[in-house]
Amino acid sequence: MFAPTSLTLSGERFRVRYALTGDETEARSKAEALCLEQTVELPAELLPDDDVRGQIVGQIETLKVLPEGRCDVVISYAVETVGAELPQLLNVLFGNSSLKPGIRVMSLDLPEGLLRQFPGPRFGQAGWRSLLDAPERPLLCTALKPMGSSPRRLADLAYQLATGGIDMIKDDHGLANQPFCPYHERVARCAEAVARANSETGLNCVYMPHVSAPAEKIVERALFAKQAGAGALLIAPGLVGFDVMRQLAADDRIALPIMYHPALHGTYVTRPDQGISHAVLFGQLPRLAGADATIYPNYGGRFAFSKEECRQIVEAAAAPMGGFQPIFPVVAGGMTLERVPELLDFYGHDVIFLIGGDLYRHSPDLVENCRYFRSILD
Amino acid sequence: MFAPTSLTLSGERFRVRYALTGDETEARSKAEALCLEQTVELPAELLPDDDVRGQIVGQIETLKVLPEGRCDVVISYAVETVGAELPQLLNVLFGNSSLKPGIRVMSLDLPEGLLRQFPGPRFGQAGWRSLLDAPERPLLCTALKPMGSSPRRLADLAYQLATGGIDMIKDDHGLANQPFCPYHERVARCAEAVARANSETGLNCVYMPHVSAPAEKIVERALFAKQAGAGALLIAPGLVGFDVMRQLAADDRIALPIMYHPALHGTYVTRPDQGISHAVLFGQLPRLAGADATIYPNYGGRFAFSKEECRQIVEAAAAPMGGFQPIFPVVAGGMTLERVPELLDFYGHDVIFLIGGDLYRHSPDLVENCRYFRSILD
Repeated sequence: MFAPTSLTLSGERFRVRYALTGDETEARSKAEALCLEQTVELPAELLPDDDVRGQIVGQIETLKVLPEGRCDVVISYAVETVGAELPQLLNVLFGNSSLKPGIRVMSLDLPEGLLRQFPGPRFGQAGWRSLLDAPERPLLCTALKPMGSSPRRLADLAYQLATGGIDMIKDDHGLANQPFCPYHERVARCAEAVARANSETGLNCVYMPHVSAPAEKIVERALFAKQAGAGALLIAPGLVGFDVMRQLAADDRIALPIMYHPALHGTYVTRPDQGISHAVLFGQLPRLAGADATIYPNYGGRFAFSKEECRQIVEAAAAPMGGFQPIFPVVAGGMTLERVPELLDFYGHDVIFLIGGDLYRHSPDLVENCRYFRSILD
Repeated sequence: MFAPTSLTLSGERFRVRYALTGDETEARSKAEALCLEQTVELPAELLPDDDVRGQIVGQIETLKVLPEGRCDVVISYAVETVGAELPQLLNVLFGNSSLKPGIRVMSLDLPEGLLRQFPGPRFGQAGWRSLLDAPERPLLCTALKPMGSSPRRLADLAYQLATGGIDMIKDDHGLANQPFCPYHERVARCAEAVARANSETGLNCVYMPHVSAPAEKIVERALFAKQAGAGALLIAPGLVGFDVMRQLAADDRIALPIMYHPALHGTYVTRPDQGISHAVLFGQLPRLAGADATIYPNYGGRFAFSKEECRQIVEAAAAPMGGFQPIFPVVAGGMTLERVPELLDFYGHDVIFLIGGDLYRHSPDLVENCRYFRSILD
């Protein structure tokens, strides 16, 4: 049935920590199934040879019983199973096992050799700070809203926001290429408006268009943004795939900082006993795929993340990871101006505050609202 | 603050049915938040004008109290919010609200005008049947395994499987472009082996390579597959994004049937009170994006889908949906040969049985195992 084959791998492996529900016996059985499911997809007794069994099948490195009926299991996989491709890394990490309940990816430990196959953040925290001439303070971000506005109205808002001292003005992630607000016209007008404001203020505000788009159009839109003078890009890998972000980050023609948006990714984190941890989904994976900043909903806003989950994202955004630079956490999701002092205590200065609605609400004068926001941080 | 703008939309809307946890009061409050979150991302009182409020914000069409502390809510959105782009359709459907607990997308109702913006299945059930010269019977599919095998070994297996009468031989979805099994060599060898078997048997077996790949390489790999003689393509939108499948389905140079693989998508369905329903994720969305067949784990296998969930997928794969053809459900995930008669009762004849491990296990003679499998169905 199986022709002979020989396999000699490097022996280098990467490690994935999973939380599995169940007592030790159940968790061990789940872990053994994971080792097969994520690689050979055959029962162990049907494997054709020892090379596959010994080198390809995942290996349980440690298994620890946790309180509350869970176990912590570390499984290692040969780096060659990934073939240096990000979609396949995601596949080995959690592909088929996402279909089984009671399994959560908690953290990734990738060796340097594997990390070097991916671009990582081109700018990182230091790159943003240099671009914005803001060596130390927290950064200010807001969004152009609401969907339904014309490019002219959004450009007018962008001008006011840039005049008031906002660092980064992003498209709301609901702005795509709608007939009432076509991508190219919006980007050209908003980039021009921000450049005009910068020439008046002497500041370095950056306009960040949203480039989640049909597959064959994403690179074109990013290149158009660059040429129009946009200073960064916003993309939602939940809508278009993580590897597209990797592609944009690696493209020397684009060479703009990239911000990750979590749209459609929420389901992976919302239950503690399944999916992917906050640290991996919003920290490690965006960073691996080349994000320079990662948006997530802050604790105490209109979403349900806890303080501890936010802390884990921040740690993953800056923890040692090969030669990758730390990236910025972008604190969002119903943020208010009055919470900024409390959040400075929690986050320190290496953070981007993304305030949307509350910036429009504070007073009828948007420029003044921005100046007020900026004054809290300066 | 907001410059004047005017907006005149067509009035055509699409409908999304959500299940929301909570009693009527809580569900209504969640539904109102959804209407804003998925569109304007501003509180209602901050909206700048009636055009946006009346035409862009989602509208609650119906709200019904269900047993067990849930409500069924239908929300409609203007078709223009999508801008005829699939990533943005996903975004309006569930983008930010995926980050909130207690919300599940249950079904989509898209008007014909919006459906016509997407290719839909190029082949559908009828196309597969014509290609395989199998007008009525259930179809047989299996996978080349295990990861770690060389292209030569996999081609040898493909030859045996095709000789035995399998209709479709797919790459295991763990086969990517690993150094021990590079994509191009594998595809060339396996396509040749299947063609050779077909020339001997007179059958029409199809080889189906897995084309989930780095973003800039997917189309090239699909074109290579076509040119090498592969008869269909396998892709996992959870790894590379749904829109890539739409791109492949729409490309006249490729023009091959496409099979959807659920890798990494499982988390969306595993909890009944969150995520996306089985019918939408494995039925409506793949079909909208151009899949001709959709793989999912069958009830009673090594995954945890129920009989009712499987029934819903089958219905969504064939229910009226604009001019889209019905697509095949592909019953997989620990399927065994002995269950085929039972499953024929449940699924009828319009189904693809994907049997992996059990086909290798049945006896040491793989060709005979395939003939046995085929004999059950003929």
